[in-house]
Amino acid sequence: MSYSAVELIIKKREKGQLSTEEINWLVSSYTTGSVADEQMSAMAMAILLNGMDRREILDLTMAMIASGERLDFSSLKAKTSDKHSTGGVGDKITLPLAPLVASYGVAVPQLSGRGLGHTGGTLDKLEAIPGWRASLSNDEMYKQLQEVGAVICAAGSGLAPADRKLYSLRDVTGTVEAIPLIASSIMSKKIAEGTSSLVLDVKVGSGAFMKTLERATELANVLVQIGNDAGVKTSALLTDMSTPLGRKIGNSLEVEESVEVLSGGGPSDVIAITVELAREMLAHSGLADVDPLENLQNGKAMDKWREMISAQGGNPAAELPKAKHSHVVVSENSGFISKLDALSVGIASWRLGAGRERKEDSVQFGAGVELHAQLGERIEKGQPLMTLFTDTPERFARAQEALVGAVEYSEIAPSDRKFILGKVS
Amino acid sequence: MSYSAVELIIKKREKGQLSTEEINWLVSSYTTGSVADEQMSAMAMAILLNGMDRREILDLTMAMIASGERLDFSSLKAKTSDKHSTGGVGDKITLPLAPLVASYGVAVPQLSGRGLGHTGGTLDKLEAIPGWRASLSNDEMYKQLQEVGAVICAAGSGLAPADRKLYSLRDVTGTVEAIPLIASSIMSKKIAEGTSSLVLDVKVGSGAFMKTLERATELANVLVQIGNDAGVKTSALLTDMSTPLGRKIGNSLEVEESVEVLSGGGPSDVIAITVELAREMLAHSGLADVDPLENLQNGKAMDKWREMISAQGGNPAAELPKAKHSHVVVSENSGFISKLDALSVGIASWRLGAGRERKEDSVQFGAGVELHAQLGERIEKGQPLMTLFTDTPERFARAQEALVGAVEYSEIAPSDRKFILGKVS
Repeated sequence: MSYSAVELIIKKREKGQLSTEEINWLVSSYTTGSVADEQMSAMAMAILLNGMDRREILDLTMAMIASGERLDFSSLKAKTSDKHSTGGVGDKITLPLAPLVASYGVAVPQLSGRGLGHTGGTLDKLEAIPGWRASLSNDEMYKQLQEVGAVICAAGSGLAPADRKLYSLRDVTGTVEAIPLIASSIMSKKIAEGTSSLVLDVKVGSGAFMKTLERATELANVLVQIGNDAGVKTSALLTDMSTPLGRKIGNSLEVEESVEVLSGGGPSDVIAITVELAREMLAHSGLADVDPLENLQNGKAMDKWREMISAQGGNPAAELPKAKHSHVVVSENSGFISKLDALSVGIASWRLGAGRERKEDSVQFGAGVELHAQLGERIEKGQPLMTLFTDTPERFARAQEALVGAVEYSEIAPSDRKFILGKVS
Repeated sequence: MSYSAVELIIKKREKGQLSTEEINWLVSSYTTGSVADEQMSAMAMAILLNGMDRREILDLTMAMIASGERLDFSSLKAKTSDKHSTGGVGDKITLPLAPLVASYGVAVPQLSGRGLGHTGGTLDKLEAIPGWRASLSNDEMYKQLQEVGAVICAAGSGLAPADRKLYSLRDVTGTVEAIPLIASSIMSKKIAEGTSSLVLDVKVGSGAFMKTLERATELANVLVQIGNDAGVKTSALLTDMSTPLGRKIGNSLEVEESVEVLSGGGPSDVIAITVELAREMLAHSGLADVDPLENLQNGKAMDKWREMISAQGGNPAAELPKAKHSHVVVSENSGFISKLDALSVGIASWRLGAGRERKEDSVQFGAGVELHAQLGERIEKGQPLMTLFTDTPERFARAQEALVGAVEYSEIAPSDRKFILGKVS
């Protein structure tokens, strides 16, 4: 069946619904190049402004999956469960979470990406560990899942190539923020990856894609619907990203903090979100009654971490790269910290060298920010508020610019922070 | 001043207004290629769905003009006036109109185009005249305007190149129907052409771009505003395009009918619209009191036609190309014709060979449709309704398919047809 790209664009432009056959044709023609970039970007803008219904979004997701290969873990002994985060500042949760869940016998096939802009990438963080490699073949991935039970690696180029192509296009055409496109992009990779259950960590706040709880809830609902419609048990937590997650932001710094959490310590927000996500993943796999905090505290999750890192060539005992220079920022006021803006800290960390400007840039493993006080904590004027790290000290000035207005103080002790703002299942 | 294409797209996507500087940057960057086609098509879709205000549309028009050269007829002795039609079926009005207006001493610099799709192109029609050539240099055009007072020729590629590039893009990205883009496309060429006044023939109905009076009025208002804002005296007539204009549709056929009108005969709709447009153009040039019907009937317009055709190498006395084959369609009913659909007849004529499918196709000069009865006329079952002409008789079948349902009958004599539905000035 063949269609006209122009007619399909006009149909969506006029708020029509595209049929399953039309969506399949569009995605496969775009993948092969017979629908041109300029046509797809006009379509993306029409979708952004006029929306898609539930059936169309599922069709779009399935068409993206059909553009490439699908992995199949159904012959594994263990059940599989995965997590996806929409991305935030200091979001290292995947690092303790994957081995924690695997320590209960549930296999975690975690395909991850690199950072672009102010949010870090899981692969960049793990590459701070000497020897660790991100690229595995499908066979290596399968073998590690079977033997170790947890794998964090780069998504192969065979998975949902249509999404890869469309994502680059959206990036340069102002069409990133469309929920149908965000949702199908996330879910096509997760479904093609072959996990049997999935938990989404949808971040809300200044450091996240979705700035309001309303938009985040809308996205979470769509993601959960697609997953369940496609036969993957899916639920979502809405978690706070108005302030950085944990006290450490940057590649080596986040590995350090993850190891603290796997050692039974670490900041309470990182622990809470790791445990709640683990609880969801375990419940999807028939283990609703276990308390994931146990294996964090008894060392079993840490053992699994060491196995997982070693299996990919990493040395879990090696010292991590440190930044050559540091600069302490002191508190300008006394009081309870009533605002510590995630986006500002994310941009500062990015400018210090923890992130990249263009895809081909490399990151500085030691660069980033360490917070000496988190949101809600009391601090006195002149005390250290945060330390900035970089190998290239000329970056301090622009990082500090990003922090102007990032911190506010209050006389009154705040009520307890809510780390988890909602759940969709 | 430099901007980010993505930021400008997002601004328009979020219903913002683009500043004059932003629009200038966008158009010039698109012309040079530093803003890519896929970015401009996303912008075009955002403009189509979110609109532009009066100032933005004027800025867009002026930026398109600034992308190329401007003609200057201010040193001519005569005043200049031009007409632009949004296009329709059987719309040969330019042919009698230009010499008619010129016969009163007002110079008509008419830059025209070729047909694509079901509406014919003025240049294609005139090329049916043996020897006539469409391409003139700017100097030749100026000389002919000075000596003859009327010229109909191809727009040079130096005029509004940004519009040329954007128009091809809109054609393949489902973004043709945006009023700000239609309006700036039409007006940039007309203003760059250097006419001092302009009358727009905005067609309404099935055979036109604008299907409803409401949309056509909206477009007419925008066009008239831009023209007047840019210092060109501009007004618009809204004219009926629910049924073909005149009795002849096709290249040679329309030249024939134009010559009938210039001879003082011809169908009443073609005469009425020619005369009303001429009246507007003359009024803009200080000749509000003349009755243009006079020079149609006394032969002065015909003399000017012969001069104009001869000046471009054409032989106004030569026989026109005739189609090799014809087929008579007889009336299936008796009654007053209550519908004779413009779009259906336009498509039939196009399929017979009068128009082209792709830009590089050539047209058949003799192909087309002759109506033996017009809308509102009485016809008896079995009488000839129309004759189809083509050089390639295998085309008759598909042309007749286009005519299915095109004609309806009524027992009751209709009230008089209104050729002119409104005026905007």
